Formats: sequence, structure tokens, C-alpha cells
Amino acid sequence: MVKLFSSSWFAWFLLSALVSVNVGVEARVRHYKWEVKYEFHSPDCFEKLVIAINGQSPGPSIVAEQGDTIVVELTNRLLTENIAIHWHGIRQIGTPWSDGTEGVTQCPILPAQTHVYKFVVDRPGTYLYHAHYGMQREAGLYGSIRVSLPKGAKEPFAYDGEHSLLLADWWHRSTYEQSTGLSSKPFRWVGEPQSLLIQGRGSYNCSLVSGLNAAGTGSVCNATNPQCSPHFMTVVPGKTYRIRIASVTSLSALNFQIEGHNMTIVEADGHYVEPVVVQNLNIYSGETYSVLVKADRDPSRNYWAAVNVRARKPETPTGVAIFNYYPNHPKRRPPTIPPAGPVWNDTSYAIAQSQSIKARAGFIHTPPSQSDRVITLLNTQNLIDGFRRWSLNNVSFTLPHTPYLIAIHQNLTHAFNQTPAPDSYRAKEYDIFRPPPNPNATQSDSIYRLRFNSTVDIILQNANTLNPNNSETHPWHLHGHDFWVLGYGIGVFDPVNDPKKYNLVNPIMKNSAAVFPYGWTALRFKADNPGAWAFHCHIEAHFYMGMGVVFESGVDRLGKLPDSIMGCGES
Amino acid sequence: MVKLFSSSWFAWFLLSALVSVNVGVEARVRHYKWEVKYEFHSPDCFEKLVIAINGQSPGPSIVAEQGDTIVVELTNRLLTENIAIHWHGIRQIGTPWSDGTEGVTQCPILPAQTHVYKFVVDRPGTYLYHAHYGMQREAGLYGSIRVSLPKGAKEPFAYDGEHSLLLADWWHRSTYEQSTGLSSKPFRWVGEPQSLLIQGRGSYNCSLVSGLNAAGTGSVCNATNPQCSPHFMTVVPGKTYRIRIASVTSLSALNFQIEGHNMTIVEADGHYVEPVVVQNLNIYSGETYSVLVKADRDPSRNYWAAVNVRARKPETPTGVAIFNYYPNHPKRRPPTIPPAGPVWNDTSYAIAQSQSIKARAGFIHTPPSQSDRVITLLNTQNLIDGFRRWSLNNVSFTLPHTPYLIAIHQNLTHAFNQTPAPDSYRAKEYDIFRPPPNPNATQSDSIYRLRFNSTVDIILQNANTLNPNNSETHPWHLHGHDFWVLGYGIGVFDPVNDPKKYNLVNPIMKNSAAVFPYGWTALRFKADNPGAWAFHCHIEAHFYMGMGVVFESGVDRLGKLPDSIMGCGES
Repeated sequence: MVKLFSSSWFAWFLLSALVSVNVGVEARVRHYKWEVKYEFHSPDCFEKLVIAINGQSPGPSIVAEQGDTIVVELTNRLLTENIAIHWHGIRQIGTPWSDGTEGVTQCPILPAQTHVYKFVVDRPGTYLYHAHYGMQREAGLYGSIRVSLPKGAKEPFAYDGEHSLLLADWWHRSTYEQSTGLSSKPFRWVGEPQSLLIQGRGSYNCSLVSGLNAAGTGSVCNATNPQCSPHFMTVVPGKTYRIRIASVTSLSALNFQIEGHNMTIVEADGHYVEPVVVQNLNIYSGETYSVLVKADRDPSRNYWAAVNVRARKPETPTGVAIFNYYPNHPKRRPPTIPPAGPVWNDTSYAIAQSQSIKARAGFIHTPPSQSDRVITLLNTQNLIDGFRRWSLNNVSFTLPHTPYLIAIHQNLTHAFNQTPAPDSYRAKEYDIFRPPPNPNATQSDSIYRLRFNSTVDIILQNANTLNPNNSETHPWHLHGHDFWVLGYGIGVFDPVNDPKKYNLVNPIMKNSAAVFPYGWTALRFKADNPGAWAFHCHIEAHFYMGMGVVFESGVDRLGKLPDSIMGCGES
Repeated sequence: MVKLFSSSWFAWFLLSALVSVNVGVEARVRHYKWEVKYEFHSPDCFEKLVIAINGQSPGPSIVAEQGDTIVVELTNRLLTENIAIHWHGIRQIGTPWSDGTEGVTQCPILPAQTHVYKFVVDRPGTYLYHAHYGMQREAGLYGSIRVSLPKGAKEPFAYDGEHSLLLADWWHRSTYEQSTGLSSKPFRWVGEPQSLLIQGRGSYNCSLVSGLNAAGTGSVCNATNPQCSPHFMTVVPGKTYRIRIASVTSLSALNFQIEGHNMTIVEADGHYVEPVVVQNLNIYSGETYSVLVKADRDPSRNYWAAVNVRARKPETPTGVAIFNYYPNHPKRRPPTIPPAGPVWNDTSYAIAQSQSIKARAGFIHTPPSQSDRVITLLNTQNLIDGFRRWSLNNVSFTLPHTPYLIAIHQNLTHAFNQTPAPDSYRAKEYDIFRPPPNPNATQSDSIYRLRFNSTVDIILQNANTLNPNNSETHPWHLHGHDFWVLGYGIGVFDPVNDPKKYNLVNPIMKNSAAVFPYGWTALRFKADNPGAWAFHCHIEAHFYMGMGVVFESGVDRLGKLPDSIMGCGES
């Protein structure tokens, strides 16, 4: 029996080794046909409905070469719910209608409807896709995108094989319960996740729940369910592996490590970075990294790959996968306890690691030395009519039901608030270290309209939440562009002195970056991609509660919009 | 404390007495503004998400006079789900687009969209409204419609006051879990309901579930939650009350009684019936009745109003309300055990009661003596590609994503299968007393197109399910019309001899009628209402699994359809 398993596993190993070899041809069209529906899965041994693609959650990986055209023919097989899928990190140059952001770039896809997303993956790198509608991401509607170099082209680093890890956090309550709680009076918070998933697999301690479901029938938690046996990555001793790591967490900032192994960070959000050796990697929701790991430890055993919660007081067990030294059995559990991460609230450590990541020599995109406009976004937690919300410069964002791209293109000025969203807050009058003295705010769907091709600085300014002595980490994600990360700081951003410290020499370009507790993060981007683009906290609940903005630029340059994104809202 | 409660309760009683007095004016427009959203409710003490209207489930009652125009401005505040609401029993003469049947008469209403339903309530009587999309009815999206006579007009019976009771069955699992189970391989059945609700109130035995929710946090069942204290109907000794009873159950056939009191049936589905005195009333999903009850028992105590499951082996406790003799405390529980209903599988009793109900002298609509077309619908349970389905004449119905009304009106012949659905099955070759020898069937969205103003007979022919020695009761509901109930029988319908026994003298007209195990039910209706109309088993899961058909007639007579029903499917 063991022999049989080993041999089929060895076949798998050979196959996977083959797949990781670059066998690309010229740029081509890669066609995917996906059906989205609810299924019963037990990703962490606890059975729950997930939104699956072709039966899988995470969904099928998109594997392509730079320059390929991706066509996803997506059929919504949910019964009463619409969907929309965002291709996270793909800039959608010339195809803003394929960004998949409900309310911004398209109407939602109705049940029984088939929608075609078509876009070019113009850069190699590690990306994601995930639902961008309601809180469907948290229900498991996500997957990986890996874009390799064209045949013959070489990475600026060497490795013998690669593995992909998609990280997620997981709750046992439905996303309906969660979102209803967020918009209830009093506010109901779902709490910390029950599990952390690596490649869709976690392991909840079934003894913590009653063995029966709510109806008193049927078992809902089964520790021996093969769906929740840990993911494993097989490595050959002495070889070096590229591990692509992407986080689609709904809430949690994570720390990733491979027990006893150093990792060299070589890619972040699709950009090569100057190699940085770390023992563990902080990764915020929406970020992707590649690290190189050499299998250079005692090969007679396996090791834990482990994720731990950062930045919020952890109440979730360590998520694990198995780093499997060939020829050990891939499911053999390491003899050790999975490693804990660094102290969850060590903000200095977090900032230091983020600051250590620079663009790789030879691959530097030098930022414009000046910006044309500075938008400072103070994030605060607020109470509006008794509902808990997040705001930026005292405006809590609400999505309109006519997507901005359509409304602006068709000049439907009644479709959203035409007053520009505010570029700043009264910094001198606001104490970021205390809860808001007046927690009220305005709800609005107003946006920022940027001059096409202008250079824009964004200063994310963090503050205290509604609770004294509390400020959270927020991972911000920009659609349609990459930004340069010019600097991080703690305290109130100083518009005179802090810009002098910006890194204008070799800043990393990213699509996602965190702002730390009581801190600020300075970003710069060029508004050179015509469209309407969301920029928001990637914590799904925070965006739902208003923590986002929309940038428009150059929509007047676009030709006819495809009919397929229409069908909702004003006309 | 008791005194305080009593006096406020007495105020309520006076108010409710006032409301029940006929204070109507000339036919007028009654405007309702509804917001639909998820809320946490505990209808049977167990907390669960419900789909509420303006915070209520059951939703607000529509109370109108014959001839009034009802305008419901419905805003969908669900996050990712669409909705549609059907006005059950309202024929929608001239307004087929307001029938609220997703896939048949309209596209679903998107989140954030406001849809206006406008229709005339042309007849007095007791009706319902409920979701007609996916399985949202089961999530609590329903309510009552009561249409009284115009001022000055008199009912053919006398009463001193009235009460309304909406009956429902209730599960603790979400409707997503249920519908996913129904379309899973292997099939997963949700089982019998946890509770029966009277006016949205039941009382689950909280000791049957763990006190914690799935996340291990928070209590989910609280027997003292005021939301689950029984509904009460206050009556003054010696007076006679009209009790309007409507069933929106998703699955269960029910039996209703008021402990120790006879009831006189006087109305069924909006038609006056020849008075029938019963001790208990069988009521199938989609049916409405009015009964008269005299408060003629010992007034020193209260009595149970009780509902019990019929036609399926009951696993659900009796649902109760309190029949409160004034001035007893309305919440004082009767000293007795709530009464059980008649034996659940006494089919003869069920048929006999249904047969006993005739149109009331002076209010008889005589049916045409002949029909122009006979459609026999054999219902079978089937297995299609391993999925469990229901079929009619071996066709399992699927809804198209272009509503029929639109597709037919715009002549979109590619929007659904144009082959007519079959008018009959091979009666001589099919043994209704055994499971289908070949359980396969066809899935189709084909329909029946009826000559306008023709008279159509429908023979509902029941059969054995997939399990040996099992045949179920199915409550069938017709949209847009009432039908005459010409007869019921057991066994295979005999097209030569059974029609000779039809009641053509004083058959009751209804919009909903049951077919009994291994039995047949003969219905006749006039296709005199231009539109596309669903006719289906009112068990929500059965319709979802294919147990329905659609009738079209006279769509070519309709003018322009309203834009508000458009926005999905083919064009």
C-alpha cells in the first residue's frame, strides 16, 4: 500500500517537475471555461459552502507567458447571486472593462449569464484573481495567476523548480452572516478567522465544535477528511526552489516561513527586487512575492511551512504546509511544533522589512522626481447613524449601482456624486493618536478625477480607530497601475520634511502596500491608464465599510465600451 | 407590572378591533415602500439570517379594498443577491409583467435596484406574496395580502372581528446549503423542518442544539427571546371571528385546528365556499382559507391554535399560537398539551375534506361544460446525470435566463426550446405504482402555448417516487388564473369514465390544489389572461428540481412591455 502510494506520488512529482519547465511558444491565446457554483467543501476539516470554480477552491490556476491573451469564459451557476472577478495585479492596459470590479468597471454577472473576460498579461510575475463583489472573496472565490517569461528569456536569478502557495484566512460563519453583522446596529464583528489556509488547506481542531450541524443532523467536522490534509511541496535535497507566495486573506496580515530555512526575496507584485535574505516574510493581503529557498537542511525529515497572523492579536492557530524533502513521504509530519512567527505587534520589524525591499538593479523604473498632485488620505473609523464605517478624509465610500466606467463614459452625471472627493484633511486640527472626537462622517460615492498622464502622490495617513490606543494595519491595493513606494513613516506625515527622505533612486513598484499603525505610507503613480480604478484597503470588510476611493483618468480616450459590462443602474 | 402590561395590551386590543372595522373609501392607490435585506432574527428562538422587508419577516401586510391599485416600490438591499416577489392569488389581469416570477415574467431585481410592482386587487379575499426566485421564500421573504369588500358591500357571512395567520415551515440551515444539497451528487436532502411558524413565530427546543454557533462564539438559541413567544389572537367570549389562514410553507402540508373549537370554512383562495364545519383544516402550501370560529368555550382559560405536519412522516413539533379569551392574559399558556393533528398519512381523510369544499350558492362561476384541450401531467421523480430531479411527462423543467414573457413578446426564438412540451404520457405503458423503470428524463425549458380564450383541462397524475412504495402530496399553484377543481381520484386517471364524474355544477375555483399520493386531480381553466404563467408544485425544492411548467397565451395581444422587467438574458 505504501509502495503503491509512493510510486503514484513519484509520478506526480515527475509530472510537476515537467510542468515547471518552460515549454512556452509565441504569445498566444489561453482560453479558460469556468463555471462558478456553491459546493460543500471542508478546507479546514469543517464542512462549509464555498464558491468554487469548476469544483475547485482555490480555483484553477492561470498559467501563461508574458504577452499571452487570457480569455476566461465565466458562467455564473449560483442560484440568486451575481459575481464579478478581478485580475489582481494585471493592469488591464487598454481593457479597463476587464478589471472585474463590480460598481467600478462593470455590472455584476447575473445567474446563468456567461461573461467573457479578455486581457493581456503583459508582464511576467506572480498575480492573483478573486471575486470583487460583496464579500464573495471570503467565500473562496479566488486563485493564482503565474506569468512566466517568454521562451528563451531568463530570470535574473536561478532555480531548479518552483512551487505556488496561495494564502487565505477562513471563517466558519457564512459571508452573509458576516456582511449582515457589519451592517447591523449594534455592529457585529465576526472575530478572528478559524483557520489559515495554504493552497486551500487548513486544519481546524474539530474537538472545538459540536459534531453536528445546526439542524442537529450530520457531521460537519472530520479531522481525517482528505480535503484538509496539509498541502506539501516536494523538494530534492541540494536544489533551489522558487516559491511564489500570494495572499488573498480577507482580514489577516501574515508572516510566512519555512522552518529552519532562509529565504531570498526576489520578486514582489510582479517586479524583481534586490535580493533580501530573510528568515520569515511578512505578507499583507493582496501582495505577492517570490522567494528562493535552497533545500540545504537535514534531508532525513520534512519541515513545516508555516503562516502566522501578524498585526492583530492572533486567535488563529498557525497554518501549515509540509516542505517535503524527497524521498521522504510527503505527508510525513515534521517532528517539530510548527514555528510561531515574530511577535504580532512588532511594528518596527514590519516596517523595516517593507523598507528593505528595493527594485533590482537593472530593473529599476525610476519615478518622476516630482508629482503634479498630492492626495492625502486620512483613514478613520467612524459611526454614521449608529453604523460602524471607515472613512477617508471623513468620507465613507459607497459603491454606486451604475459602474463609474459606464457613468463617466456615457456622461451620466446623475449616476454618482459629482463633487470631487477631498484631497486632504485638516492635519493640524486632527489628532491621529486619539479616537475621532466626532465620529460622524459622510457617506458618498464621490471620486478623484486625475489629469491623464499626470503624476500623483498618495499619502496614506493612519490614525486611531474608535477604540483608544488602537490603530490597525491596512493593506492598500491599486487597480490598473503600479505605484512606487517612496517611503514609510510613523506619526503624522510632514509634507515639508518627509518628502525629502523619499527613495527616488530604486523604489520598488507594487500594486499593494501596507500602512502601519499610527503611520504613513507615501506612494507615487502615473495616471497613464485610461479607466476608472479602485484604490482600497484589501481587507474585504474594510472596503465594504467604506475604506476605498476611485480614481478616474482618460476615460474620454476610450472608444465604445463593450455591451457585456452593461445592464445595471442608470442609463 | 402585570397591570401595566394588561392595560397596554388592552389598548392594543382596542386598536386592533378598530382596524378590523371596514373604514374604506373609494378605490384608491395604496403605496408601499419596501427595503429588502438580511437581518438576524430568531423566529423559533434559534438565531438565523432571514430576508426581511422593512425589518420584518413575515413582511408588512398589504391591506386593501377590492379595486384598489397596489404600488410596491421595492428596493433590493441584499449585497450580492437579486430578488423577485410574486403576488400569489392576484391574477394580474392586464399586468402580466407584475406577476413577479423570475425567468417567466421578469428579470431579477439587482442589488441597489428599485423595482415598482403595480397591480389592481380586483377581488376581495385572502392572498399571499412571496419571493419567486431561487429558494428565497424559505428564507422568510413573504407576507399577507388581505383584500376587503368595498365600503357598504357585505360578506355572505357575519363575524365580529378577524385575525390573520400566515403559516410557514422553518429550517436552521441556510437556503444556500439547501439548494446546494439539492443540486449535489450525491443528493443531499435538508430533512424535515425544525419548526412550524404561525405568524413568523415558532419555538424550537434549544436544548437540542449546542449553545454556540459554528464559530464557537455567541449563543444561537435562546428560549426566552421575545421574538419566539407564541403569536396570540384575542377573542371576546361569545363573539365570532373570521380567521384568515394562509400557508407559505416550503415543503410541509399542514393541518390547522383551534383546540376544542369547530371552524366553519367560508373562503378558499379568494372564493366564497359553501360553509363546511370542520374540527381541523388541511392546508397545502399556497392555499388560503377563511374560517369562522365562535368563542364559545370555557372563557376562563386560553386554547391552543395548532399546526401539525401532514402527508410526510412528521419530525417537526406542533406549531402553536394562543387563542386568547379576553380578559385572560394573552400569553398565559393553555393548561393542555397542544393537540396533534389527524394521522399524517390518512389520505382518504385529506381527499374527503378537499372534495367537501364547493362554491357557495350565489357565488358560483359555472365552468365551461367542455374543454378545448386536455393536458395530462404525470409527475415522476428522476435521476438525470446522477442528479435527482422531478419531471412532468419525462421533462424536467428548467428556467431560461430570458423571461418567457419577454422572449415571446420580442420573438426571441433562440431564448428557449421552441418544441412544445408534451401534452401527455404513455399511460398504458407506465406503472404509477412503481419507481420509474428508467429514471432518466430530459431537462428542458419548453412550454405550453395555449390558444387565447380556450378552455384547458389539466390532469395532474401522481406516481411513485424513486423509492418503492412512496408517493408524495404535491400542492400545485397556477399563476394568472383561477381554475375549477373538477375532481380528485386515486389511481390512474381514466379519460373515458372519470370526466363523467366531474363536478360541473358548483366546483370551487382556486389557484392552488393538491394532488394526492398515487392520485389524480382534474382542473379546468380558461386561458383568458394574456401573458406567460407558471404552473408548478408549490414545494419550493420541487419547483427548483423541475416540477413545473409554463403556459403562454395571448402575449401577442400585449402592448409594449415595461423596461423595468428587462435587463437579462438574450436580446
